[in-house]
Formats: sequence, C-alpha cells, structure tokens
Amino acid sequence: MMKTWLEAVREAESRIRPYIRRTPIEFSPFLSQETGASVYLKCEMHQTTGSFKLRGAANKLLSLAERGYQGAIITASTGNHGAAVLHMANQLDMPAEVYLPKTASQAKVDRLVQLGATIRQEGTDSLISEQIARQQADTKGIPFISPYNDREIIIGQGTMTLEIMDQLPESEVIFVPVGGGGLISGAGAALLDHPEVSLVGCQPENSAVMHASVTAGEILDIPSSPTLSDGTAGGLEADSLTFPLCQQWVDRFIDVSEEEIAEAMLSIMKHHHYLIEGAAGLALAALRQQVRDFKEKTVVLVLCGRNVSLEVIKGLLA
Amino acid sequence: MMKTWLEAVREAESRIRPYIRRTPIEFSPFLSQETGASVYLKCEMHQTTGSFKLRGAANKLLSLAERGYQGAIITASTGNHGAAVLHMANQLDMPAEVYLPKTASQAKVDRLVQLGATIRQEGTDSLISEQIARQQADTKGIPFISPYNDREIIIGQGTMTLEIMDQLPESEVIFVPVGGGGLISGAGAALLDHPEVSLVGCQPENSAVMHASVTAGEILDIPSSPTLSDGTAGGLEADSLTFPLCQQWVDRFIDVSEEEIAEAMLSIMKHHHYLIEGAAGLALAALRQQVRDFKEKTVVLVLCGRNVSLEVIKGLLA
Repeated sequence: MMKTWLEAVREAESRIRPYIRRTPIEFSPFLSQETGASVYLKCEMHQTTGSFKLRGAANKLLSLAERGYQGAIITASTGNHGAAVLHMANQLDMPAEVYLPKTASQAKVDRLVQLGATIRQEGTDSLISEQIARQQADTKGIPFISPYNDREIIIGQGTMTLEIMDQLPESEVIFVPVGGGGLISGAGAALLDHPEVSLVGCQPENSAVMHASVTAGEILDIPSSPTLSDGTAGGLEADSLTFPLCQQWVDRFIDVSEEEIAEAMLSIMKHHHYLIEGAAGLALAALRQQVRDFKEKTVVLVLCGRNVSLEVIKGLLA
Repeated sequence: MMKTWLEAVREAESRIRPYIRRTPIEFSPFLSQETGASVYLKCEMHQTTGSFKLRGAANKLLSLAERGYQGAIITASTGNHGAAVLHMANQLDMPAEVYLPKTASQAKVDRLVQLGATIRQEGTDSLISEQIARQQADTKGIPFISPYNDREIIIGQGTMTLEIMDQLPESEVIFVPVGGGGLISGAGAALLDHPEVSLVGCQPENSAVMHASVTAGEILDIPSSPTLSDGTAGGLEADSLTFPLCQQWVDRFIDVSEEEIAEAMLSIMKHHHYLIEGAAGLALAALRQQVRDFKEKTVVLVLCGRNVSLEVIKGLLA
C-alpha cells in the first residue's frame, strides 16, 4: 500500500510534466544566518496559475482523460484550486462549471468567466454552494474536482516534493503549509523512501483544524477565525482522505500567529523580492517560532503560492 | 562579423547553462485583453541573483576561467551587476574586489561583505570610484568586469533572447529595458537570424541617454534625473561598445514617464503577483504608451529584475 502511493506520485510526475513548471529551489543566505540552519526556499509560488494546486488539478484531469473521459467537470472554488482546475480544463478542452455562493463578488465572477468557466451561483455561503455542486455532479454523472479530498489530487501535489528531493537530496526537514492537507499528504507519499526526512505541518493558529484533529485522533468540526493564510483556512470534510495520511506521515505540527505570518511575508519580500500569499508565509513563521529545534539542519520552506492582493500588501507595509 | 556575434551567443548559452535558470515565459490574459496584442512576460526577474545580469557575469567569468585565468576580479557596482559578479566569483573561487564610493551606505557594504567581497571605498561618487577601480585593475593586471561595456558581457545577456525565441518562436516584437545597452545589444545579436522580429528599446524619460545618443548619432554626455528605473539610470562611457550595436539593431526607442513606470509595476503586482523593479516596468509602460502600433502583434515584455525595496513598494501603493 505504501509503495503504491510513492509509485503513483512517480507516475504522476511523468504525466503532468508538460503542463507544470519545475520550480526553483533557492538558498537563503539571510535566513540561514538568522536561524543557524541551512535554509532553502522551494519557490512553488512561481508555478503556473500561482500555486502548487496546478499539480493536483493536472494529475486529476489528465487521469480522467487517460480513462477516456471527455466531458465536463465541476468544481466549487474561487481561489487557487479553481484557477488551476480552469487552466487545465482549458488545456484539455473540458467544459468547466464552477459553483459559487450568490454572495461572491462580481470581480471574482468576472475573472472566472474570463477564464472560460460557466458560473452557477447557488446558496448563500461557500459550504452550501459546494454541497450543491457535489449533488449536481452526482445527479449529472459529472466528476466533481475536490481541492484535497481526492487521491489523484493528493498524488499530483506529491510531485512537488519529488522535485525537492531531486534538487536538494540533503534535505533534512521540509516545512509545508497545511489547510485541507493535500500538499503535505502528497509530500508524505513522495517521502516514503526517505524516512530520514522530517515533515513539519504549518498552520495558522486561527485555523489549525488538521493539527487539532490529529491531536484529538478524529476529525473535529471546530470554528476558524479570519487569517492572512486564507488559502489554508477552513474545516475538513468528515471523510477526508488526508486525515489518516497526516496522522501517519506528518512528524510535527507548528501553529503560528497572524503577526508571525505577516513578518514572514515581509521578510520574503524584503530579502528575496518575491510576493507570497499568507499561506506561503506559514513555513518561515513556523521555523522562526521553533528555531532552536532546527539549528544546523538543512531545511526547505515551501512557498506554496503568490496570490495576494495589493490591499493585503498595503496592510503589511503600513 | 554578424554571424560571429550570433554564434558567440549560442556558445555562451552552453557555457553558462549550469549556472543560470531558464526563466519562464508567461501569457498575460489581462494585458492581452487590455492592449489588443498577445502579450507574454519573460520572467527574467526570477533569474538567480534577481536579474538578467547573471548571464553576462557568468559568460565573462567562465570565459576568463576557460582562458586559464584563476586570479581575482574587480568590479564597481552595488546593484544587480555587483550581485551577479559576486555570485559567479563565489562559484568559481575567484576573489572579488568591489569598489564603492565612500558615500555608500553601511547596509550596502555589509551586504557585499556577506557575499564574500573585499570592499575598497574610494572617491566621493560612483563614477570616480569606478575610474579608480579601472586604474587599479590596469595597474594590478586584474580583469575589470564592466556592467555593459564588454563583448563577453553583452554576449552573455544575449542568451535571454535565445531562450525567448526557443520558448515562443512566434514572437514579433520584444520590448527590452535599456540602460547601458548590454541586454538589448545581446538581444540584437541573438536575433541576427530573425530579421522579422522587432526590437523596442525602453527607457525612462528621466534618463534616456542611449535613445538621445542614437538620435544624435553620437554618444552624448547629458544629465539624468532620478527615476524609479534606477537599474537603467546614468550615462554611457565614451567608448561604449553597445552604442554602435544599438544604432544597428534597435528598431525603435520609447521613453516613458515616472507615472507610467509606477503604473506598470503596480499592474504586474496586481495581476500577476510578481514584484518587479522599476527597470522591469519600462517594457509594459512603453507598450501601453504606444499601444496602437502593436495591436494584433505577439509581443514579449522583458521583466528584467526584481530588486526593489519595500520603501519603493510602499510609495507605489500610497
């Protein structure tokens, strides 16, 4: 079973290669000096569509196509996952329906229409519109593309960590932002032949549902507060595939404050001149918070996306 | 002679490949819709050390090493060229002396020391410290690494345009920021077998020395005003190799205002979520200013670097 996951990630790597960028990994002299670790940045925010989500979406849609599926697909995200799914759907000429709550801003609707999506506005919040999307998908027999609760999505995300181990075989600790847990579950799968590498899950204190659930030994339905790391915010579905994988494969979780996330985003802007979104600040924030545990280690911080608004940047700089 | 330049760029491409990133080229749906052209961004700001300058520095230092040179090198830049030269000098174990004016900030000095440079502070402005650096290089028999007035530097910069033509063979117009003219001269060399591709030189109105010189038919010694595009600011050396190359190979120059540069920087941040420096805003600013001439064309905007300070970003957002 464990071997199967790793082999699937390797197969996904070949499948999606023509559609994704091999993103650079970069040594940080400044952060290494500050922390006493050898700090590398996995620049996944340079990925096409602005985040790692393209890897999972590519693996999912290409796998559907390999199985002979040529019809429409349904999803329910306005964020990085939605952009990634639409990008791949366009590449593969699959019509895409995107379900949004009736409260979604016209700007978001317009952007999705520009990307070629058919928009369905249903329900008054995103949880309800996602439920309606799933029901419609079931009724119509159309695949629903989940952001994380799908084996082929998880396996696609795993390709990022295969790249890391190829680019920096001496990696000892990898800090990965965690929301639904797709990226870190994929990382765990990719590291099955590297038991010596530690996997640190990084969450905002304001929405640390996976961490709390793993601690409790069951998926908890607990509320989240707003966070700069909006890309990782929110609850877990009751049957999340990622939960048992995180139980097995994540060595440690670290939760960080909003202030720590803001400082991390500013440090990456100031010293590396990269824009990153809040979720991508989690890894550096977590390393800094527990820095004594990682002295002398070779650590990789996953910068998972760059979709941040000018308003947020303005707030950080104020 | 013309063939020689192009062949030299192709040779440089093989020489420097292990040291540089093949930077992505990216379609811009937003800018294409706005301008009526098919707009692509050459994301050279993702280059190691933050700008295209690494290409020239790599070609220069590797060429020296191929000729058996193993000693020190001298340069006189605190900016992108300095960072690129130091990076390559470190890779090749060549001791590097960097000449700075006595007025250089302690922060800049510290950063260069951190990168392993030996600092010599001479003179009261950067022109004088560069002259002293050249004299010292001559006296000691140590190579002086010029930011643009050097055939091997120009040829190294040309590799960026080889990449563009490989990534997007249908390119019709390439917009290139111009300061000393190294990047656009290299582009002209790389395009010698593509006479159908137009090369547009982009300068800030506040420091358009190459444009004014090409118009006058001779290198002019004219003053510059401060500009957001500090990476392209300043005069030309009297014997600049780049001047006759720009006379021959640049199809057109466009000068842009500070406001146009600021708007371009903000647009790239807002729609593509990339930080770029002022010089990298020149290409989009120039396309927008003369947009009617480029409708329906496939245009490439060279985003040449990302070394911008938080203070500048704050000013843009205010």
